[in-house]
Amino acid sequence: MPHTIALVGGTGPEGRGLATRFALAGHRVIVGSREAERGAAVAETVRKELAATTARGAAGSTSGVSGATNEAAAAAADLIVITVPYEGHRATLESLREPLSGKIVVDAVVPVRFDRGARPVEVAAGSATEEAAELLPDSRVVGAFHSLAAEALLDAPAPIDSDVLVTGADAAAKRLVCDLAEQIDGVRAVDAGPLRFSRFAEGITVLLIGINGRYKARTHLRIVGLPDAPAGARPHG
Amino acid sequence: MPHTIALVGGTGPEGRGLATRFALAGHRVIVGSREAERGAAVAETVRKELAATTARGAAGSTSGVSGATNEAAAAAADLIVITVPYEGHRATLESLREPLSGKIVVDAVVPVRFDRGARPVEVAAGSATEEAAELLPDSRVVGAFHSLAAEALLDAPAPIDSDVLVTGADAAAKRLVCDLAEQIDGVRAVDAGPLRFSRFAEGITVLLIGINGRYKARTHLRIVGLPDAPAGARPHG
Repeated sequence: MPHTIALVGGTGPEGRGLATRFALAGHRVIVGSREAERGAAVAETVRKELAATTARGAAGSTSGVSGATNEAAAAAADLIVITVPYEGHRATLESLREPLSGKIVVDAVVPVRFDRGARPVEVAAGSATEEAAELLPDSRVVGAFHSLAAEALLDAPAPIDSDVLVTGADAAAKRLVCDLAEQIDGVRAVDAGPLRFSRFAEGITVLLIGINGRYKARTHLRIVGLPDAPAGARPHG
Repeated sequence: MPHTIALVGGTGPEGRGLATRFALAGHRVIVGSREAERGAAVAETVRKELAATTARGAAGSTSGVSGATNEAAAAAADLIVITVPYEGHRATLESLREPLSGKIVVDAVVPVRFDRGARPVEVAAGSATEEAAELLPDSRVVGAFHSLAAEALLDAPAPIDSDVLVTGADAAAKRLVCDLAEQIDGVRAVDAGPLRFSRFAEGITVLLIGINGRYKARTHLRIVGLPDAPAGARPHG
């Protein structure tokens, strides 16, 4: 079933990349920004990237990508992905509590700052996703998508050789986000457990950023040894 | 070059498993315990496991495995791997500061406790490995081996489909530990960065423990997208 997906803080490369992939999967996508004009401009960029992608043979439609303020995007969507830099995490979520209420909120934010290399930022709640769950008690908060490299997302429709780790307390919301993640070609979703494990899913991304710099590579993560399970038969809890 | 390797707290399954693999690779191994008799008894078990393994066609010698107190093991070894449960981490290292001085100390400890599932333990230093580096200023502390499942290690000589993440401040010590890790069949060592990234290498193990329970699996980790580099040509820093 197609969703209306808002990318809050969607004008950076991670947001643009996810917007491209979700649009390719047939969802309606709204690129959110603090300024409506900026959201609209980036949506136009995504439409152009999509047109080039579909010209290369991918299915998908460019008509379903628009731009808006973060607030309008959140209000219009049924599933919202947060892709702001960590320093804007708390303020952004506090300001969107109302339009995010009752909805699935996917936190893709990694608590990291850059100062001669990637450095973890301490989060009192334990992780960005747990902080989101505290700030948005009326939303269905799930952590996902952290470790997908923006350049790989933007390299659509090329498959991405990666697992996506999904954490959260709401089993149905996690299942839905797992299904969404697996609509990105090559991606497998892994139920990485309850909210308290979010720090590890986020932290792996900091590790990969460091490895990418050290090895001059674009790396992703795979969990090996999982049983092959048909979609829908995976555990979630 | 063969090492003399001590396993401090080596009587648990992780220590026994690493002892088996290191002995198979031709190193002299000392299983350390708080009680010398217990170390000797577990060394005897490891020798029997090794004999069964070599009967199954693996190379390796059973003669180089002995038991001792943690202190005697540390004093006799040139490379020491710490495999105590996290609750014994600080006290064990404080008591071994002297015999560990000047040596390579590989911390394989994961700050986790079990209470209806695996739960992360907060470490003031940020990670067990950073705590070890604080407690052992005269040792060359490296983090490694956390995520290798004990059952997989004990299933020698079967290859283990896993990366080992190696962190630390001492480039030469890291390189040596990377080489040691890759003597375990199937294992690839990945330079996971400086000490401050140790929390992520440790945390991934908590994540894998949770995934193992949820999926009824024995999982490991692979970083995908790394260039194939000949041993010795990998970056370390």
